[in-house]
Amino acid sequence: MSMPEPIYLDHNATTPLLPEVVEAMLPYLREHFGNPSSAHVYGARARSAVEQARDRVARLLGCDDDELVFTSGGTEANNLAIRGVAEARPERRHVVMTAIEHPATAEPCAHLERHGHRVTRLPVDADGRAALTPARDAIDDHTVMISVMHSNNETGVLQPVAELARLARARGALVHVDAAQSVGKVPVDVRALDVDLLSVAGHKLYAPKGVGALYVRRGTPLAPFVLGAGHERGLRPGTENVASIVGLAVACEAAARDQEALAARLLRQRDALWRRLAEAVPGLMLNGHPELRLPNTLNLCFPRVSGSRVLGGAAEVAASTGSACHDGHERASAVLLAMGVAPALALGSVRLTLGRGTSDDDVVRAADALARSWRRLVGDA
Amino acid sequence: MSMPEPIYLDHNATTPLLPEVVEAMLPYLREHFGNPSSAHVYGARARSAVEQARDRVARLLGCDDDELVFTSGGTEANNLAIRGVAEARPERRHVVMTAIEHPATAEPCAHLERHGHRVTRLPVDADGRAALTPARDAIDDHTVMISVMHSNNETGVLQPVAELARLARARGALVHVDAAQSVGKVPVDVRALDVDLLSVAGHKLYAPKGVGALYVRRGTPLAPFVLGAGHERGLRPGTENVASIVGLAVACEAAARDQEALAARLLRQRDALWRRLAEAVPGLMLNGHPELRLPNTLNLCFPRVSGSRVLGGAAEVAASTGSACHDGHERASAVLLAMGVAPALALGSVRLTLGRGTSDDDVVRAADALARSWRRLVGDA
Repeated sequence: MSMPEPIYLDHNATTPLLPEVVEAMLPYLREHFGNPSSAHVYGARARSAVEQARDRVARLLGCDDDELVFTSGGTEANNLAIRGVAEARPERRHVVMTAIEHPATAEPCAHLERHGHRVTRLPVDADGRAALTPARDAIDDHTVMISVMHSNNETGVLQPVAELARLARARGALVHVDAAQSVGKVPVDVRALDVDLLSVAGHKLYAPKGVGALYVRRGTPLAPFVLGAGHERGLRPGTENVASIVGLAVACEAAARDQEALAARLLRQRDALWRRLAEAVPGLMLNGHPELRLPNTLNLCFPRVSGSRVLGGAAEVAASTGSACHDGHERASAVLLAMGVAPALALGSVRLTLGRGTSDDDVVRAADALARSWRRLVGDA
Repeated sequence: MSMPEPIYLDHNATTPLLPEVVEAMLPYLREHFGNPSSAHVYGARARSAVEQARDRVARLLGCDDDELVFTSGGTEANNLAIRGVAEARPERRHVVMTAIEHPATAEPCAHLERHGHRVTRLPVDADGRAALTPARDAIDDHTVMISVMHSNNETGVLQPVAELARLARARGALVHVDAAQSVGKVPVDVRALDVDLLSVAGHKLYAPKGVGALYVRRGTPLAPFVLGAGHERGLRPGTENVASIVGLAVACEAAARDQEALAARLLRQRDALWRRLAEAVPGLMLNGHPELRLPNTLNLCFPRVSGSRVLGGAAEVAASTGSACHDGHERASAVLLAMGVAPALALGSVRLTLGRGTSDDDVVRAADALARSWRRLVGDA
């Protein structure tokens, strides 16, 4: 007898593709296989698909078509933004980021640090939000850019992006936002935020893995990161990943269409999950700001046992401890440590992230399975 | 009445995906959507697909699984190889490439040059092959690496890779090979070539756009290029593009299975195309070595008219002038200029590249259409 599929509560790690996304991709994996750079009809069809897709992605972000560069994903978009600005503006040698950035931001910043830049890592408060006062103190006339995530991948906490952007712009620093976790979950409008660069990761919003985009405000000094031929107005070489770019565009349209209703439903389901679990597990702790959070994200510390043991005992649920993007080793979450969570507790964290496919029944069954697992473990302990 | 699809003779620009490649990808675009880094069953399935794929790609190249890094394509693979070695071996500051490398190699080398490296560009002979004597003179104890393409994308001319590798190794220099155009068309065995790094581009061998691989011989000093989390043994961060990696693996298996018979057929068809065209167009010139060439590639100069005009007058044929990977501007081919072809002739070049779908009838019809177009143009002139 085969087990039913576990309830998928790991949508911040990756999302299933929307069926309409797959359908839209198929013609570009089959008959419309041309290289957008080719001058003949096969090329023209591919080129036109990429440009239509650019328009649809731009619409979701509130920018113009010529302000979008397609990349291989969020990580490459962050690398292009951070290293591309640093190279284009060598006269300023100071970078500001938060202490809870994803490695795809933190590592490019650390690379700049090894090569002579000064890097300031802004602390976060106990709710997991970057603090504004240290930012005001840190940003000066040497600051080339600040890089801040729109929301944190582990806790879902929304960061004060617009406020940080204002502080940065007052000193002539550029602003990069890693919006990988936010796009498709909450509104992200580059003009309202008043930022210069913003990264999107396809597979976090029901589009395929291996595609992403970087918004680059018109006029932003930016050198290409990957080097080669002249694609993407000289900012990103390599034959365009046509099918996946088309998929990303359809996912962006679906996000724009469904976002409001979806967010309301996820918020209700997530809070139901929290209440049911909190009732069953005395001492269960919620990590991150109680309200300023992605509607789908619940980051919890179970008392007295590690998160991986709780998940290990609940085969009905597929979720992650801390961040799933990395190498699978059990380590206390650096994000929770930065928020002041005690190391023993930080090791106990479980991240439950809901998505389009999550049903009300999933919520009940997942809560009960996790609570059962925890009770068995503390009974054993 | 709709026109039939033009005969596709632009397989060096990109290839249609094999139906078996698309079929193998579909489950990973549908039900098996997990993130390979996730510890649960969704993640495990994706991880296992990536590792099986790695094994199949490694088998085609003759390397071990742990010597392969998946990338977003050939351009990224070249950037990783060239910039990664330069960063890992900063004590040597000289790079050798050929004068006919693709921009995905030439531009990373030019970047190193701007940052203090010395770069030697080896000349090619009239047949389009890199010369060995200048290489012997150029490579010294300061040479960190040589980077040479396995075959040229415009002329298809096979380069003396094994010979250059021997010269490089004698002086302790590493060897990178851009095999984007060769893999799937001719045997490419990394051990037989005795090279350290070798780039593969999926979409040149009937796999999707947006995926590639870099062979990295065990023990090769290499820093990651894109920076972020610890994927691909720390050499390439970003959530793995599972579906496309699976597609690349199936394409590699198909290449290994069909290569010999396919190459023989393409050679026969290509030579038939050449003979039929040469008969109809007096003064037609073949560019590149008459034998040491990819079996599918024909690079021609039409007398008295530009290549783009010949193609423009032959709507039945989809092919390119010079290289298609770039920005579509009409320029004399730098590759042909490096071979000593006169600028006026180099502007006249047409690249006809055959592939799996090419029929004998296509060959006849394409030759006749191109000859007709040329005759009309010279009649007009």
